[in-house]
Amino acid sequence: MDATSVKTPAAEFGFAPCEGGVCAAKGMRATGVHAGFRDDPNRLDMALVVADEPCTVAATFTQNRFCAAPVQVSRERVAQGVARAVVLNSGNANASTGVPGLEVARESCAIVARELGCPEQQVLVASTGVIGKQLELDPYREGVPAAVRALEHSAEAAHLAARAVMTTDTVSKESAWRGEVTLEDGTVATVSVGGFVKGSGMISPNMATMLSVLSTDAPLTRAAAQQALRDAVNNSFNKVTVDSDTSTNDTCILFATGKAAPGKAIGGESAAYPAVAAAIRAVCEDLARQIAADGEGATKLVTVDVLGAATEAEADVVARSIANSPLVKTAIFGHDANWGRIAAAAGKCGVEFDQYDVDIDFMDVPVLRGGLPLEMDEDDMLRRFEQNDEVRIVISLGLGEASARIWTCDLTHEYITINGDYRT
Amino acid sequence: MDATSVKTPAAEFGFAPCEGGVCAAKGMRATGVHAGFRDDPNRLDMALVVADEPCTVAATFTQNRFCAAPVQVSRERVAQGVARAVVLNSGNANASTGVPGLEVARESCAIVARELGCPEQQVLVASTGVIGKQLELDPYREGVPAAVRALEHSAEAAHLAARAVMTTDTVSKESAWRGEVTLEDGTVATVSVGGFVKGSGMISPNMATMLSVLSTDAPLTRAAAQQALRDAVNNSFNKVTVDSDTSTNDTCILFATGKAAPGKAIGGESAAYPAVAAAIRAVCEDLARQIAADGEGATKLVTVDVLGAATEAEADVVARSIANSPLVKTAIFGHDANWGRIAAAAGKCGVEFDQYDVDIDFMDVPVLRGGLPLEMDEDDMLRRFEQNDEVRIVISLGLGEASARIWTCDLTHEYITINGDYRT
Repeated sequence: MDATSVKTPAAEFGFAPCEGGVCAAKGMRATGVHAGFRDDPNRLDMALVVADEPCTVAATFTQNRFCAAPVQVSRERVAQGVARAVVLNSGNANASTGVPGLEVARESCAIVARELGCPEQQVLVASTGVIGKQLELDPYREGVPAAVRALEHSAEAAHLAARAVMTTDTVSKESAWRGEVTLEDGTVATVSVGGFVKGSGMISPNMATMLSVLSTDAPLTRAAAQQALRDAVNNSFNKVTVDSDTSTNDTCILFATGKAAPGKAIGGESAAYPAVAAAIRAVCEDLARQIAADGEGATKLVTVDVLGAATEAEADVVARSIANSPLVKTAIFGHDANWGRIAAAAGKCGVEFDQYDVDIDFMDVPVLRGGLPLEMDEDDMLRRFEQNDEVRIVISLGLGEASARIWTCDLTHEYITINGDYRT
Repeated sequence: MDATSVKTPAAEFGFAPCEGGVCAAKGMRATGVHAGFRDDPNRLDMALVVADEPCTVAATFTQNRFCAAPVQVSRERVAQGVARAVVLNSGNANASTGVPGLEVARESCAIVARELGCPEQQVLVASTGVIGKQLELDPYREGVPAAVRALEHSAEAAHLAARAVMTTDTVSKESAWRGEVTLEDGTVATVSVGGFVKGSGMISPNMATMLSVLSTDAPLTRAAAQQALRDAVNNSFNKVTVDSDTSTNDTCILFATGKAAPGKAIGGESAAYPAVAAAIRAVCEDLARQIAADGEGATKLVTVDVLGAATEAEADVVARSIANSPLVKTAIFGHDANWGRIAAAAGKCGVEFDQYDVDIDFMDVPVLRGGLPLEMDEDDMLRRFEQNDEVRIVISLGLGEASARIWTCDLTHEYITINGDYRT
């Protein structure tokens, strides 16, 4: 991570959650329509997010070697740093589709460009759904003009866009934060950051996330936008794991319209930068937690905190090992405070520590101290499971000062049902 | 891996499967009894395996940083290279039990030593079951004398021992191979190798396996025994993953009684070594496949072959990534030939390859060539799922000549039921 990490929470800069999702930022419009990628005419399957004018754009993408056609096309275009719009579809990932898939991705952008009257190069594309099936172009031909007519700068429109990218998600996922920043010249500007994400399974993003579109009206420079986005993604989406499976299509795009302070600029060195970066991180963290809580079949959001590690990288390895352990995840589903499985998951991952230095707290109850079990009140633990939608695991390795947090969920019968029966 | 890897199959040395399990080797006796570690009086819960005389011993143990008390005790003793017996219990892992746990492990060996009339240092111990509960000594006081009285050199006795270490295993797992080798002095000796293993969940052994006891009557030297065992384990148990969780108690012990050719020795350089090593590997591979097939809740044994990799290490990483993918495993449970998930699992693991060089065969049907999907007959695929207990996945990366094979199983509702409800 070469970006300067902003660790101060957005609230300390006076920012607070607000309404509006991806339309919270001035200069952004959005909508969601049924274009025909899915058979069910009542299901939204295409989102369009548009900046009123060409604006700064930053993005992160999947590191999967099998990367989808839309990722290849969008990655090229984001490199220019300026964009107008992104079109997203659900139902088909346009992955493993070769040259025809690339042509469909490019042509879908061209259709959007014609309707908006902008260069093709300023349109990005993202897809999610089944892998290895050719994506049809027809739904774009009807869907895009309808979507362009329906574009609005409103919370309702932002919500339609968020709904249109859902696959196995059971709820749409949005967040927005707003606050004031003082620019270099002393002007005070009200800045908003907002966005949506889809994601529920095949979730273990790496330097990227599932499909997410964010926007801010802060006048971020291109470098500052990319830096703030990378930092936020590394500390939010990249810290979520539902099933350790990294998607072929992970994409996170940030539009920075500059409408909060026209004619001004916020670079990485600006006094206003940390507040804006913190707000972007706050939105990403909100969305990341929503992904974990809506993990396929999940009944619990699980937060794993590793403390006392020698390095952040080692803390991350231990936290992921616990968060991805099927035995830990099924125990939580079964309301079993089985800290032995947490210890075993921490011990298996290759990070060196002394088992007799380890402490574990499970749902805020100390269960292991110095590697040895404490007396546990099973009835109390059961009550804690029943009364909380979140389960917090804290493990301290007793080595140093480094820490890491990973979000995940439990592993349930419903996960098996969803994924044993996805295509049929 | 510093051992010389023997890749020639045992059958090519004229070895063939035989009866007798851990008692197939001359000079070995065994039994399984109900000692009282479990409440159910009809369930065997203690195994005892004894060599008639002190003999060469080799072992591999878990690499988990949380390692159980019996692992600590046995590891010390195996270092001497000579042993008489191993006592194994199920129902309690004696892990995370601190100094009292170590005392119980040592005292259980002392009880066995007194009954057999041998030094304590020649008795090994292994445990499997719940983590973090103090292990009672009482069951040993009654169980060990009864077990010593019941010791036999017979297939039935070997089978009792194999049954006594079962936890969530649904079947006991045994194997034995027998063949002839020519010694340095021209003598021909009939050599047997046999053993049992327990293992069904928390299976992703690393330089070790779940509890397994093997024996051979080949007169292996201590170095040759350790080399052959390490090589066999690396290519069998260490290639199985049920749920990516590595146990705190993994132990694999090999007794080499020498009774096949009293007074002779087979070292790592002996002409007879490759055949004996191949037979040990054959037994381990049989047992490893049985573990995968009996993975908790499994309906299918899954073999993942990665071909055309740049190095064996990279092939192993890709094969494990596929074998541990919950999405691949649930698709197989759902009889869904979803090769897109195989591609995504291969692509996520950090190994570099070009997606347009990749071929995939699913149940012997080519489904991907050069990164692009082939037409698939869904009815034919469904038939193949229904007619086979084994599912074979072959993926070629198109990079080099290296390969790896990993065994796993599907992920099912039953896995969730077993592990969401293990302690209650």
